[in-house]
Amino acid sequence: MKNITIIGATGSIGMQTLDVIRKDTENFNLVAVSLNKNYEKAIEIIEEFHPKYMVVNDYETYKAIKEFIYKEKKKTSLLNDIEGLNYIASLDEIDTVVTSVVGMIGLEPTLKAIRAGKNIALANKETLVVAGELIMEEARINNVSILPVDSEHSAIFQCIQGNTDNKINKIILTASGGPFRGKSIRDLKKVTLKEALNHPNWKMGSKITIDSATLMNKGLEVIEAHHLFNVNYEDINVVVHPQSIIHSGVEFKDGSVITQMGNPDMRLPIQYALNYPKRKESVVDTLDFFSLKPLTFEKPDMNTFRCLSLAFEAGKISGLMPTILNAANEVCVSLFINKKINFLDIPVIIEECMRRFNFNLELNLNNIKDKDKEVRSYINSKYN
Amino acid sequence: MKNITIIGATGSIGMQTLDVIRKDTENFNLVAVSLNKNYEKAIEIIEEFHPKYMVVNDYETYKAIKEFIYKEKKKTSLLNDIEGLNYIASLDEIDTVVTSVVGMIGLEPTLKAIRAGKNIALANKETLVVAGELIMEEARINNVSILPVDSEHSAIFQCIQGNTDNKINKIILTASGGPFRGKSIRDLKKVTLKEALNHPNWKMGSKITIDSATLMNKGLEVIEAHHLFNVNYEDINVVVHPQSIIHSGVEFKDGSVITQMGNPDMRLPIQYALNYPKRKESVVDTLDFFSLKPLTFEKPDMNTFRCLSLAFEAGKISGLMPTILNAANEVCVSLFINKKINFLDIPVIIEECMRRFNFNLELNLNNIKDKDKEVRSYINSKYN
Repeated sequence: MKNITIIGATGSIGMQTLDVIRKDTENFNLVAVSLNKNYEKAIEIIEEFHPKYMVVNDYETYKAIKEFIYKEKKKTSLLNDIEGLNYIASLDEIDTVVTSVVGMIGLEPTLKAIRAGKNIALANKETLVVAGELIMEEARINNVSILPVDSEHSAIFQCIQGNTDNKINKIILTASGGPFRGKSIRDLKKVTLKEALNHPNWKMGSKITIDSATLMNKGLEVIEAHHLFNVNYEDINVVVHPQSIIHSGVEFKDGSVITQMGNPDMRLPIQYALNYPKRKESVVDTLDFFSLKPLTFEKPDMNTFRCLSLAFEAGKISGLMPTILNAANEVCVSLFINKKINFLDIPVIIEECMRRFNFNLELNLNNIKDKDKEVRSYINSKYN
Repeated sequence: MKNITIIGATGSIGMQTLDVIRKDTENFNLVAVSLNKNYEKAIEIIEEFHPKYMVVNDYETYKAIKEFIYKEKKKTSLLNDIEGLNYIASLDEIDTVVTSVVGMIGLEPTLKAIRAGKNIALANKETLVVAGELIMEEARINNVSILPVDSEHSAIFQCIQGNTDNKINKIILTASGGPFRGKSIRDLKKVTLKEALNHPNWKMGSKITIDSATLMNKGLEVIEAHHLFNVNYEDINVVVHPQSIIHSGVEFKDGSVITQMGNPDMRLPIQYALNYPKRKESVVDTLDFFSLKPLTFEKPDMNTFRCLSLAFEAGKISGLMPTILNAANEVCVSLFINKKINFLDIPVIIEECMRRFNFNLELNLNNIKDKDKEVRSYINSKYN
């Protein structure tokens, strides 16, 4: 029986993780969850899974759930704020922490969980983007596995099994290309929020869907892949593959390419991470080769989709530059969703921040948090 | 340093194995080779690799090479016939035996090599087709690895690394479809030998090229895959993939599909088998995703290409039926190459033999050899 904490249980990955747990209650026990402010889903989780602990970030929602628990005589202990988050990430009884929260908020509980010796099913991109060196070093010291939940990194992780001694020539990081693949800068001037939220292959949360439209999502994945698999940026090849059937792959030293394929369904990488190294009965539709559209591959257009090249640049510079990139991107996406800036403003503002802020400081949690705040308040004061 | 014997050194796979050895002389030492009657290549091998032993099947060629060795004062010991073959397959100093000979003749030396504890780089299809149960059992008892050299089986073998505890849902065995893909029975009535020998993707020997045109090659591979990976025939899916970039793959229990990809170059699986579990510097052109044609997948047409369904049938019946299938096919291909029968006669004659001969005998080497002879002499007396 594996005891599990989910950080960010009501988001897209969180809900799909709950579905994987639901389908294998003999093996999985949901001990603790965190969420921001989705009251309805929180109540459903309490009713169905009876978690021992629930951390609620938004204070109004926290109070409402508190009342529900009292009235309905539920046994779930309710906690609040980052202390609660760190607590459920490092509980003695927990085996695996699923970090499915979106954004910088995932970093601290992930570090706490690693230091407490918990295996991490990592869906929170920002953790590795801003603090990859710290995270991988802590994982090594504490002998914990970082099990990627992104479909791409899960694919790569599956492909390198049984090849620990074999050098990776390059990573083939596939990208759907998002809803604006093939568009020119002129086309992108007039795109609406609705168009940007209409991803061709994957159903995801709004932040990551916008990141997919700008290709920043792929950029963040490049930085993640660099840290997870210890591969140089020059050896990470982004390949646009619009059908999203090949989820990524690896070319080994001998030229052999191993790829992982499947229908686009996040429950597969979630299930793999939770059961690793075992595989369990499929919870997803299996791939029917005879009904596949032709699989095609293109170069990404990094001139039009500047975010991807900015991410490569930030990753190569390293230090606090990925923190600047990520903070600027998070605020820009939020501003775009709130219709304060245009789609094409996103890379412009990010680049402005990369040129403006000092990245040449020691990489530690405090500096990351400070730099993150600094960038956010700059953009918000200027554009909000 | 790995000491190597090549059974069938002057054929297509044999020559490519020599190329792999040539490119890594620090690791590989060619101790012994066998060949049928290619005098020129035999001399080249002696001049370049100075093998300790050479077995020559054809007696005239044997005598000519004997003279060459005497005149030129070469140190290679020359042997003749099956005794010589069995000798070089089980030499004490040998680590790996590459069985790249085509046809039933590979069976006995392969068994000898396994019993002498040698690892087998297996390119000889017939060995597993006619005696899969015996071979795999002997390999288990003698604790030797059967390392597949076929591009498809090497692909599958690479895909299951690190997944020894994970059940295979199904094997995806890709097939180019050969030169006659999409043709009807009517079209096939008039095909010439030249057309049949014109394979779209792979440069191979003539026997296997004809087998690719009839799809018998894929049928034999189905039977091989059944034995190598212990998978039911129902779970082996032949997928026509005309671009020959995905060399095969595996769907695991959880629905995840792992595939191996690369340019069609047999030196990659040969190199993998010789270095397993390590991978060495690439000797082949690496895959450029951006120059790939769209990858497509089709159902095989088992009504038009009857050989494939006959192979599935023979494999399922098991016992001596695969021997009957294989013997009939070998003779038919030879008759077709010698223009004694038409392309469409091949499956008809094979099916006739499968209905005519008793397959219900114990599976052992003697019965396999007897049945093989019986089928061959029947067809030859009737059609030659």
